[in-house]
Amino acid sequence: MNANNYVVGVDFGTLSGRAVVVRVSDGAEVGSAVHEYTHGVIEEHLPDSSVRLGPDWALQSPQDWLDVLRFAVPAAISAAGVSPSQVVGVGTDFTACTVLPTTADGTPLCFETPSLPHAWPKLWKHHAAQAHADRINALAASRGESWLPRYGGKISSEWEFAKGLQVLEEDPSIYERAQRWIEAADWIVWQLTGVETRNVCTAGYKGIYQDGGYPSAEFLSALNPDFADFVHKLTVTEPSTPGAPVLAPLGGLAGRLTARAAEWTGLPEGIAVAVGNVDAHVTAAAADAVRPGQMVAIMGTSTCHVMPSDRLAEVPGMCGVVRDGIVPGLWGYEAGQSGVGDIFAWFVDNAVPSSYAQEAQARGLSIHEHLTGLAAAQAVGEHGLLALDWHNGNRSILVDHHLSGVIVGQTLATRPEDVYRALIEATAFGARLIVETFESSGVPVEEFVVAGGLLKNRFLMQVYADVLRRPLSVIGSEQGPALGSAVHAAVAAGAYEDIEQASAAMGKRTVAAYVPDDKAADAYDLLYAEYRRLHDLFADGGILHTLRRLRNAATGPGRPSIQGSEAGA
Amino acid sequence: MNANNYVVGVDFGTLSGRAVVVRVSDGAEVGSAVHEYTHGVIEEHLPDSSVRLGPDWALQSPQDWLDVLRFAVPAAISAAGVSPSQVVGVGTDFTACTVLPTTADGTPLCFETPSLPHAWPKLWKHHAAQAHADRINALAASRGESWLPRYGGKISSEWEFAKGLQVLEEDPSIYERAQRWIEAADWIVWQLTGVETRNVCTAGYKGIYQDGGYPSAEFLSALNPDFADFVHKLTVTEPSTPGAPVLAPLGGLAGRLTARAAEWTGLPEGIAVAVGNVDAHVTAAAADAVRPGQMVAIMGTSTCHVMPSDRLAEVPGMCGVVRDGIVPGLWGYEAGQSGVGDIFAWFVDNAVPSSYAQEAQARGLSIHEHLTGLAAAQAVGEHGLLALDWHNGNRSILVDHHLSGVIVGQTLATRPEDVYRALIEATAFGARLIVETFESSGVPVEEFVVAGGLLKNRFLMQVYADVLRRPLSVIGSEQGPALGSAVHAAVAAGAYEDIEQASAAMGKRTVAAYVPDDKAADAYDLLYAEYRRLHDLFADGGILHTLRRLRNAATGPGRPSIQGSEAGA
Repeated sequence: MNANNYVVGVDFGTLSGRAVVVRVSDGAEVGSAVHEYTHGVIEEHLPDSSVRLGPDWALQSPQDWLDVLRFAVPAAISAAGVSPSQVVGVGTDFTACTVLPTTADGTPLCFETPSLPHAWPKLWKHHAAQAHADRINALAASRGESWLPRYGGKISSEWEFAKGLQVLEEDPSIYERAQRWIEAADWIVWQLTGVETRNVCTAGYKGIYQDGGYPSAEFLSALNPDFADFVHKLTVTEPSTPGAPVLAPLGGLAGRLTARAAEWTGLPEGIAVAVGNVDAHVTAAAADAVRPGQMVAIMGTSTCHVMPSDRLAEVPGMCGVVRDGIVPGLWGYEAGQSGVGDIFAWFVDNAVPSSYAQEAQARGLSIHEHLTGLAAAQAVGEHGLLALDWHNGNRSILVDHHLSGVIVGQTLATRPEDVYRALIEATAFGARLIVETFESSGVPVEEFVVAGGLLKNRFLMQVYADVLRRPLSVIGSEQGPALGSAVHAAVAAGAYEDIEQASAAMGKRTVAAYVPDDKAADAYDLLYAEYRRLHDLFADGGILHTLRRLRNAATGPGRPSIQGSEAGA
Repeated sequence: MNANNYVVGVDFGTLSGRAVVVRVSDGAEVGSAVHEYTHGVIEEHLPDSSVRLGPDWALQSPQDWLDVLRFAVPAAISAAGVSPSQVVGVGTDFTACTVLPTTADGTPLCFETPSLPHAWPKLWKHHAAQAHADRINALAASRGESWLPRYGGKISSEWEFAKGLQVLEEDPSIYERAQRWIEAADWIVWQLTGVETRNVCTAGYKGIYQDGGYPSAEFLSALNPDFADFVHKLTVTEPSTPGAPVLAPLGGLAGRLTARAAEWTGLPEGIAVAVGNVDAHVTAAAADAVRPGQMVAIMGTSTCHVMPSDRLAEVPGMCGVVRDGIVPGLWGYEAGQSGVGDIFAWFVDNAVPSSYAQEAQARGLSIHEHLTGLAAAQAVGEHGLLALDWHNGNRSILVDHHLSGVIVGQTLATRPEDVYRALIEATAFGARLIVETFESSGVPVEEFVVAGGLLKNRFLMQVYADVLRRPLSVIGSEQGPALGSAVHAAVAAGAYEDIEQASAAMGKRTVAAYVPDDKAADAYDLLYAEYRRLHDLFADGGILHTLRRLRNAATGPGRPSIQGSEAGA
């Protein structure tokens, strides 16, 4: 292996894209750059337009993604101080399911008709297709579709089929013009290589691809006769087996960098481009945690849990289990918590009084740091509070975006740091419930590995260790997804035989960085038992769904929204 | 009736005492003054002492009460511009059960041994005798004591017997020295007249006096053998019927102003002093709402509901039903909500961010007014939230001080005004549940009359009208209790035949000041149904009691507290 070889990993996030230049031999991160999306998350109205979006909509602009290639990649190379000629491969990862309609040649429909909301990419957190997901789930359950248990019994409104069905039924002309319905993860690789591929990971986790195929035309037709051919928009075929979907394996070579993409990025034309991937899943490679039972929790605004395993089981409420979905040869499990850091940020923005802001400022701390310090001084249970971390819905184990947050135990003596700590603990309890659900379903969790932005809160990490009652390993990089993409790029470029080898050489992980305190863990066991009770009291959604319905009824008629958007609200 | 005659009403509150000078002929309030208690509520440690108090303790200083007589009464006379010689009577009302141990001549024990916590008056909201109340309730239920159903099946830890038993068991020397155990309502009248009396109202509502007697010595002895003679500390007798308790009727003449009290107050020696009373109950007279079915809700930091009725029924979870307890000749019902304005104040102090404080300031509004304005702009149900107003426990209908607040439905879009509105609504739902409980128990509520500080929030009043789906009458005075005490003083002075007559002449009430909006009321019916569900989910205290227990266990050992105080925590 040439010690002067480098790869570039590019991570497309929710608000920005990041490029990292990584040495192939040892994973050293030698330079990076971030490009903030000009349009960010499009939630209120379309860019340069008065067209307003309905509740729960969330879109992105493909131009923002291309700008990451044009600006962040060259900037990262400059920052690294390496020559572009030393770069042997590029890998990318994306949020998912972020999906868009394009023409046959991959042109996003929003480039042609920017005033039509459904022409735009739907970001992962677009939640306006819930009604469509509900129908898909009900029909699949009634027909006993074999793929349904692979997704914990429910597919999400965030995924390809729910969003696609929403387009069909709310703007059929867009549906018709959309010759391709493609994950952004694959679209960006198409832009780099000129070749359309479909990666195993998003096809499985977001596209309901299981056991060699997508849901049947018969099933789709029962949802809506015009939806019968939807799978054609997803499928890439080979001449030798016309009609059969061809998926590209993770770590595989998707194609070679085109002249156009070389011009954008400043990288050499013809270098290897890895198959597309999802930000969470690719992080396993960055943490060198791609062996069975290594659960990687990517903790940021939300938390995504990914874990390879050699066993196939039906784990209730997981997001999905996909063959080869994290590394080829193993089953890849995914679970998630819809709101984690987002909940803490919401609390700080909306529920912390001036006096705390002033005190934090006087002490040179962020409000998060100030609250964390106060919360850390408490004994377990001292605040008398218990919360459910469902402010952004519940992904695992309930798979219900229409749930909402709960907090109980407040008294006239309850202070902001009490609630802040209770919210942190609620997310830890949510994580424990996910781990326990895997284990009770026969899928062992051997190691809990943390990646993501919340790593910097050491108190929070200790709470997780105590609540989970197990040591926490932590990733050794602050840019896990981009590093993971670089690892995949190294494999695609042929520098390593497979992802396991590349991860071992380039990935970074500190084992048992946090260990549980027995006394705290004992106290948390008692609180966790109450969390389970509270969880089960509200799990059926009875009260929370009614509140959501009444809210939507109260806000619906008076709020401007695009035609049909209420259907999913 | 002499048009130049005046009476003085003195209202002893939680943080201050207020004197009002009122014209006897028509109830005109011609002058008033407020004296803030020097010691306020004593919760952390004893005055001028390092002795710390345990959790849930709340004491007051009798000197503060005497200072109200010395400062507020003369100041009110000055403010009124009337001559003291025109004053024909004084009436007083007090928080209850606020109760203290004294010597045989009425000297508070805390004047003798100020370093002993149990020597001090226990304020109504002293909640450290819960364990004692629990034992009283369990024993009474097991023995089928006939008085228990008169209190909704549970006496409160706030009352005379629970607090007395706490003293006995935690500081027997104080118990022994306490030859009298007396409500502050009666103690202050003793100071004014030199005569010890016991009013019907506190004896019934706080002293478990029913059907001519207190709980039996046999019952008390079963609680603790040394408690058998407790009733002697409460009882005033007449020589003609030794041993039988003599109670003084409301509106009655307790005695004549002594020379000493005349010196304190600047009022003429020998004028009439009315029998003591409770702040809430006396307000009915001020609102001219002393007829059967007129429920007066005194809405402030907490809410107390009082209602005369010609029917005796066992209403679950009411605070008490007492013969002659509001006006002679009728049954007097009392119910309550432990936290109302206190909850809104807690929210504003602890959960409203800087940006709101700044906006309020820029607009020249209090934060309450700013939040109210924002909340008022919403449609019913728009915030998607539902709360239980139990932050300070639940008095009616659950009679459980160890419950705590609950809020459900929070999302990442939830704003402070949303929570604020949900808390207001929660208290309105709590009020509706009380009204419905009375009516379903066969005690009609003919009119809902509002008094108290929350009257000034017109939005809140409209919410109550909509939630209750009935018109609200409002009192025409901002100092209801003091005016009510003045009405009683006028009766005691012989200016009117009875409370009904005096109330009709001097009380003030606007009928149907707020009327329900049908559409809002319909929407609230749906939310109220969910409130009932939520109420019932947590009513058994399962989760909330466990959290309280874990909180106390976590804070107990590390927190300095006086001996034995944990018993009631």
